[in-house]
Amino acid sequence: MSARVLLPWTDIDVPEELEAAYYDGVESPPADLGDVEFYVLPYDRGPEPPKLISRLPSLRVVQSLSAGVEALVPLLPAGVRLANGRGLHDLSVAEHALALIHASQRDLPRWFAQQSRGEWAREHTRSLADSRVLLVGYGSIGQAIERQLVAAEALVTRVASRPRPEEDVHGVAELRELLPEADVLVLILPDNPATRGLIGPDELAALPDDALVVNVGRGTAIDTDALVAEARTGRLRAGLDVMDPEPLSADHPLWTAPGVIITPHIAGGSASFYPRAKKLAAEQLRRYAKGEELLNLVEH
Amino acid sequence: MSARVLLPWTDIDVPEELEAAYYDGVESPPADLGDVEFYVLPYDRGPEPPKLISRLPSLRVVQSLSAGVEALVPLLPAGVRLANGRGLHDLSVAEHALALIHASQRDLPRWFAQQSRGEWAREHTRSLADSRVLLVGYGSIGQAIERQLVAAEALVTRVASRPRPEEDVHGVAELRELLPEADVLVLILPDNPATRGLIGPDELAALPDDALVVNVGRGTAIDTDALVAEARTGRLRAGLDVMDPEPLSADHPLWTAPGVIITPHIAGGSASFYPRAKKLAAEQLRRYAKGEELLNLVEH
Repeated sequence: MSARVLLPWTDIDVPEELEAAYYDGVESPPADLGDVEFYVLPYDRGPEPPKLISRLPSLRVVQSLSAGVEALVPLLPAGVRLANGRGLHDLSVAEHALALIHASQRDLPRWFAQQSRGEWAREHTRSLADSRVLLVGYGSIGQAIERQLVAAEALVTRVASRPRPEEDVHGVAELRELLPEADVLVLILPDNPATRGLIGPDELAALPDDALVVNVGRGTAIDTDALVAEARTGRLRAGLDVMDPEPLSADHPLWTAPGVIITPHIAGGSASFYPRAKKLAAEQLRRYAKGEELLNLVEH
Repeated sequence: MSARVLLPWTDIDVPEELEAAYYDGVESPPADLGDVEFYVLPYDRGPEPPKLISRLPSLRVVQSLSAGVEALVPLLPAGVRLANGRGLHDLSVAEHALALIHASQRDLPRWFAQQSRGEWAREHTRSLADSRVLLVGYGSIGQAIERQLVAAEALVTRVASRPRPEEDVHGVAELRELLPEADVLVLILPDNPATRGLIGPDELAALPDDALVVNVGRGTAIDTDALVAEARTGRLRAGLDVMDPEPLSADHPLWTAPGVIITPHIAGGSASFYPRAKKLAAEQLRRYAKGEELLNLVEH
C-alpha cells in the first residue's frame, strides 16, 4: 500500500504515490496514524500538533510551516528529517512592520479614537519619508522590509550579526554607535543567546528622543521593563507584534504605556502566507514521492 | 527701499535684495502690507490667508504650498502670478495611502481596541502582498504610491484620465471593466467636473466582495451615501483621508459605518512636507530677487 502523509489542509496537491490523511490542529487527528511517513504540521495551532510527532512510529519527515523550528528539534526521533517554512512569511512579516511604522508615524490610534467619537480635529503628523531607519536583522525578512522602506524614501542603515562591508551591512557590535542616529529602530531577530536582551536600558537610552522601536522578530530581543520605562516618560515610542512575555497578562504595564502600539503576534500569518505555504507543501510531497532532495531541510 | 515678501515661517532663507515680513495664518498679519510683492501663503490655515490677498496692493506673486489652487484663482487681481506646491506633498500623501491600506488589511482598529482592554486574542488577517490594486490617478502622487505598492509585492493596475498605452496606463473610460478585478481601489484625483461622483453606486457595485476603497485625493470623487450603503452591509471596506462633506458632522453615518477607517484630511501635511516646502519658498525668493523664471507657475 502507498505511504501516508498527514496534512493540515485538504486543498494541497498530493501525488498519486501518496495517500493523504488530514489534521488541522483543531479537530482531533485521525485514529490510525501508524503508517504516516510525512507530517506537515498545522500552522500556528499551539502545542498539540508537535506533540503528535511522538505518536507517528513510521515518521520520516516533519515539514514545519514556520521559519523558527527550535522548539521542534527535541521532539524528533533519530532519523526523522525536519524542513522549515523559511521564506513563506517574509512578505507578511515585512508588510506588518510597515503597518506598525505607518500607524505610529501617522498617529492612527488617535484618529481611530476621534472617529469613535465622531470628532473632526486635525493635526500634522510625523512622516516615514526622510526618516532614518536602523534595520537590525538583515535576512530575507529584513531585506523585504528594506525594499518597502526605500520605496517610501526612508534612509536605511543595515545591521546583521556579522558585518558584511561589501553589502554595506554593519555588525551588531557597532549597534551602540548607530543607535543615536536612528529615528526608527526595526528589529527582526530570532531568539537565541546572542539576541536575548540585545536592546536593554543602555541601548534604549542611546536612541534619540521620540524614536520609534518596532519589533517583528522575537520579543526577547528587547528588555520589556526598560522599554516600558522609556515609553512612560514619553521619550520613546514603540510598535510591537512580539514581546516578552507572550501572551501579555491583562494587567501588564506594556498595554497602557503611552505611545506603544501592540498587535498580538500576528505578523506572519496573513492571507498572503497560505497560498505560499500550500505551494511549498505540494512541492515537498512531490519531491518525497519521487525520492528527490527536499527543500528547506534543517540540520538537527 | 527693497521689495517686501510675506512669509509663513521665519526660517526661510531670504535673499538680501528682499525684506521679509511674517504671517503664520494664526496670529494677525503685520499692519503695513502696502508694499508686499511676494506672498507665500501659510499652509493649511483655513480661509483667512487667502482673504489677505485683497489687502496687498503691490502684490506680484502668490506662492501656494498646496498642489490644488482652484480656490485661489478667483481671488487674484489681474497681473498677479500664481505658483503652486506641486510635488511637495507627494511622499506625505503616498505614505498615508499606504498607512490606510495597511491599517485596513491588517485590522489595526481591532488590535488597538483589544490593547485598550488588555486583551490578547489572535486571528490571521488580510494581506497587501499579492493583492490586486487599482490605482486611479497616475500623477506624481500615484506614481509614489505605486513604488511602495510594488515593493510590497501588490499587483498594480494604472488608470489615468487619458489612456497612455506606452506606459501601460488605462483610461478612466475603462474603469468599469477594471473594477471587478480590484481587491483595493486607490483614488488620487483632483476635484473637477470630470472626477466629481466618478465612483458612484454602479462603480462600487462592480467591485468584488470585501474590496477596500481608499481615497487620498478629493472626497467628491466618491458618492458618500453609496459608499455608506455598501459598508453597512459589510460588502465593501474603506480607508478615507478625504470625504464629502468635510468636515464630517458629528452625526454623519460615515463615522460609524463598519469597516470604514477615517483620518481627517491630514495626508499631505506630515513632517516630511515642511523641509521641502521651505526649500521651494527659498528657491522662489532667490529666483524673484534675481528676476529669474519662477517654478510651479499656474496659468489662470
